Amino acid sequence: MSEQIVVIGGVAAGPKTACRVKRLMPDADVVVIDQDSLVSYGGCGIPYYVSGDVSDEKELRSTSFHVVRDEAFFQEAKGVTMLTRTRALAIDRESKTVEVEQLDTGESNKLPYDKLLLATGSIPNRLPIPGAELKGVYVVNNMHRAIAIKNDLAQGKVTKAVVIGGGAIGLEMAESLADLWGIETTVLEYMDQLLPRIVDPAFAAMLAKHLKDNNIAVYTGESATGLEGDDSGRVCRVLTPKRTIDADLVIMSVGVRPNSTLAREAGLLVAPQGGIVVNNRMQTSDPTIYAAGDCVEIINQVSGMKNNAPMGSLANRQGRVAADNIGGIPSQFEGWVGSFIMKAFDCCIGGTGLSNTTAKGLGFDAEVAITAQSDRAHFFPTQAVIMLQMVFDRTSRKVLGVQGFGPMNDSILARINAAAALIAKGAVIEDFSNLELAYAPPFSTAVDALNATANVADNIAAGRLRTISIEDFLDWMDRPEGKPGWAALDIRHPKEAAEFVEKYGSDLWQAIPYVNVRSRYKELPEDKMLIIICDAGTRSSEVQLFLDSVGLRNNLVLGGGFNAIRRIGPDWWPS
Amino acid sequence: MSEQIVVIGGVAAGPKTACRVKRLMPDADVVVIDQDSLVSYGGCGIPYYVSGDVSDEKELRSTSFHVVRDEAFFQEAKGVTMLTRTRALAIDRESKTVEVEQLDTGESNKLPYDKLLLATGSIPNRLPIPGAELKGVYVVNNMHRAIAIKNDLAQGKVTKAVVIGGGAIGLEMAESLADLWGIETTVLEYMDQLLPRIVDPAFAAMLAKHLKDNNIAVYTGESATGLEGDDSGRVCRVLTPKRTIDADLVIMSVGVRPNSTLAREAGLLVAPQGGIVVNNRMQTSDPTIYAAGDCVEIINQVSGMKNNAPMGSLANRQGRVAADNIGGIPSQFEGWVGSFIMKAFDCCIGGTGLSNTTAKGLGFDAEVAITAQSDRAHFFPTQAVIMLQMVFDRTSRKVLGVQGFGPMNDSILARINAAAALIAKGAVIEDFSNLELAYAPPFSTAVDALNATANVADNIAAGRLRTISIEDFLDWMDRPEGKPGWAALDIRHPKEAAEFVEKYGSDLWQAIPYVNVRSRYKELPEDKMLIIICDAGTRSSEVQLFLDSVGLRNNLVLGGGFNAIRRIGPDWWPS
Repeated sequence: MSEQIVVIGGVAAGPKTACRVKRLMPDADVVVIDQDSLVSYGGCGIPYYVSGDVSDEKELRSTSFHVVRDEAFFQEAKGVTMLTRTRALAIDRESKTVEVEQLDTGESNKLPYDKLLLATGSIPNRLPIPGAELKGVYVVNNMHRAIAIKNDLAQGKVTKAVVIGGGAIGLEMAESLADLWGIETTVLEYMDQLLPRIVDPAFAAMLAKHLKDNNIAVYTGESATGLEGDDSGRVCRVLTPKRTIDADLVIMSVGVRPNSTLAREAGLLVAPQGGIVVNNRMQTSDPTIYAAGDCVEIINQVSGMKNNAPMGSLANRQGRVAADNIGGIPSQFEGWVGSFIMKAFDCCIGGTGLSNTTAKGLGFDAEVAITAQSDRAHFFPTQAVIMLQMVFDRTSRKVLGVQGFGPMNDSILARINAAAALIAKGAVIEDFSNLELAYAPPFSTAVDALNATANVADNIAAGRLRTISIEDFLDWMDRPEGKPGWAALDIRHPKEAAEFVEKYGSDLWQAIPYVNVRSRYKELPEDKMLIIICDAGTRSSEVQLFLDSVGLRNNLVLGGGFNAIRRIGPDWWPS
Repeated sequence: MSEQIVVIGGVAAGPKTACRVKRLMPDADVVVIDQDSLVSYGGCGIPYYVSGDVSDEKELRSTSFHVVRDEAFFQEAKGVTMLTRTRALAIDRESKTVEVEQLDTGESNKLPYDKLLLATGSIPNRLPIPGAELKGVYVVNNMHRAIAIKNDLAQGKVTKAVVIGGGAIGLEMAESLADLWGIETTVLEYMDQLLPRIVDPAFAAMLAKHLKDNNIAVYTGESATGLEGDDSGRVCRVLTPKRTIDADLVIMSVGVRPNSTLAREAGLLVAPQGGIVVNNRMQTSDPTIYAAGDCVEIINQVSGMKNNAPMGSLANRQGRVAADNIGGIPSQFEGWVGSFIMKAFDCCIGGTGLSNTTAKGLGFDAEVAITAQSDRAHFFPTQAVIMLQMVFDRTSRKVLGVQGFGPMNDSILARINAAAALIAKGAVIEDFSNLELAYAPPFSTAVDALNATANVADNIAAGRLRTISIEDFLDWMDRPEGKPGWAALDIRHPKEAAEFVEKYGSDLWQAIPYVNVRSRYKELPEDKMLIIICDAGTRSSEVQLFLDSVGLRNNLVLGGGFNAIRRIGPDWWPS
């Protein structure tokens, strides 16, 4: 008899595994069940369907050659039986069967398996606040919700929206509402920055400013405490401890948790945080049962910690490994590093590895190097400045993470991808300094921005560069009296420095152009802590070494320079 | 007394080393000498200066903050003495002095050194053919030549140009002439493909077709045998064994050789190919003399072979390592992997590591995997197909190289950079399959094109996928009678297959759509070698596994599918 392979879950890891298993074991009977009627969709594309970038939901469920991935497609093209509207009720590991219910008929029966794959995904969190069940309040976890939101938009029901949750999906949804539908959109984030834990405060602040510049209201350190509805039962207001916001659409995007009930009830090992425990062949504690995707717990290769990583890209990789092992190929999934990237209007933000905040929390001797460098040759017409940050461990010199903020093209992606590759290999700063990124003036610089960031990290790690954080300098700009001994040393062009000299006075804001520091350093005060600022931090580093050499060691460099300041701004900064 | 550091060569590695040495050793006297009057320019930017993308040559000699890097700049800003128009005549290692001549005055004197850096660069090759010294014939190795070419262009002296040499610089020059000046441009390449050794024939052919589509005549396997001039002594014709081409501008871009005469005359170890021999701290055979940039020989980390790698990006990295070691920091330069990227009109081509041709030549058990995948989610509006090729060793499963061809943006860069990082770390196919590239629909696909290419390589290496080369399939398309047992199995949409069925007949060109293969495979002939073709190769691979499972094992897959064919075309293909 053919081997029976049953897959529970039909979105990402499930179909991936099923199809590859069928390719590796052409004689096997492969069955996928899913309680939904719509399966195998690109969930990450939902914000772009809602925005209208993707016009029809079918595109999210189609192959690259424009065939909809429905039951017939799986049967005919893949030889895989896809049972939709079919819910798995229980797994009987003794008899190796899955009890399933056909939702439309109520019939239930038992599917025998030789190997079983759990790809049960995740469940979106909902805030337990009054009004959470009103009409117009959505979580975005499947195509039906996406279609309902887009219908609301298309019918003109929405003029004001609130997105609760400043993670990647919430922000992508906010952009889609504000950008293409022109909806007055507010983002609420309970933590005190956007993309908490994923990026560090300075990068989150650049993103927040860019969103605000594009007419999205952003309130951090603030979440919804209640939702109010109108007579028709549709949401009309969002309450927070600080304000009341009108809204006829509310999107709750406050994280997900692994959907592991079935696994737990079957007696499989499930981690305290809810993820199904698997080994690096994606096997659960029952060797005939595999699991992949949002429902499992995986190891972070940088921190060594196990956690959930609900991402479509990881689900696909895990699915391939599960399929290989079911099919007799000893592939392994070694874990994840945490790569991400996100479009935000005409900018993008991305990262890989650990943030500085996370790394410090885990006990690393973490430090950051921040740069503002041209993405391509500075003389090439399309060049733009990209902000990069490297997080590294001072003791081991291991690179723990890289973050980037830049224009909406693939320039950040090009650096994050390279960083992800090296970080997965446990690379140290030197590996990044010598990394041979492809170079030609239309694409990059002879010393690539990522190399340059590593060189700054090297200088910091070796004690050749002392820096101040962007946050500290912004604090000083807002309230110089809070740090009485400080003064800025602005080495940019005098025209650039002029407005600041005027605002702060030439005592607090000293301006000596970079090329004149060697001849004019004696004008500098010896009793002040000088914060050296240029556009990118590079010239400032040189000036620090020079000032040190002439005995003026009381100085710090602002990494990323005015390119960082300009993208965040002190409180008085014009938007 | 201060330590005396002398640097010979003022373009890339020289100034880089000098400035960092001065930062690390603020008390040192650092002197750079160069025989030219123009120094520290971005030589790689010359094609973009000639094209007009960069309007003024000063931009190539300026910092990112728009200050020209001249003698005054080096003195004032960097504390480095830059002696231009100063030629190094000889090195006396005994007395540790360099004999130099000031070219404008003819004066000579001796510069003492404690540490010396040779950054003498490379010398462009010139073909020893009649007419090589005519007016209007240029090699492009310094700013003066670039300015002269642009003057010729601006004065309307040029309507037709020939570029001799189809390497990266020659092609960039050809693009700049044809694209922005509208000059009738011809490229001659002696080898039988463009970018010989650097990319493999299929990728070179895609590039050649794209150049031809943009009105550049490309002749490979053909070089100039002579140049003829008019009465004024200006070039007017280029002769090849096959044709005579009118030209009032000829650019010779036929490679460079290390400029190591000074080193050799000083008794330093120089390799047979002409590169100065250095260790991984950039020290020559005399430990007080360092060398960096185009003049040295470095090790290729993939092949283990030593060779010249004249690239500005490498020169800068070597310069940093040399400076570190002069300054007492034990940095190391581990070698190069061979990353490159090149703009060609609205496309780009890039690569890293070894080509298949090179790898086979070196004795690797090399094989390729070619894919045609979307750069971003196939439903995202800006998506485009990128062609990727992975070169791997079947025995060790080590990845030896990656090549890419795609649209003119950073999508190829993003994959090449990641590949360069892994290849430098000696990665195997699995590392690429599991590489966690950053994913969001506007940037990439859940299974990134690079992951997908590795998955194909994995299937090939494991014997689960048998492919045919693009070249072989194109041969068959040109002359089916040359391979009498073959037939195409076109599994694309019937509308796409129709024109080929009509041209070749349904016996030679069988069309069964992908989704119907499982139900209709019995229609297929058992006595033919079936070449399975789709758009990308992915569906074909699935079909191969299925056909194998039903006993039809006489088949091969065309990797990259019609996306590859379309970008090259058989001989009868319309341009």
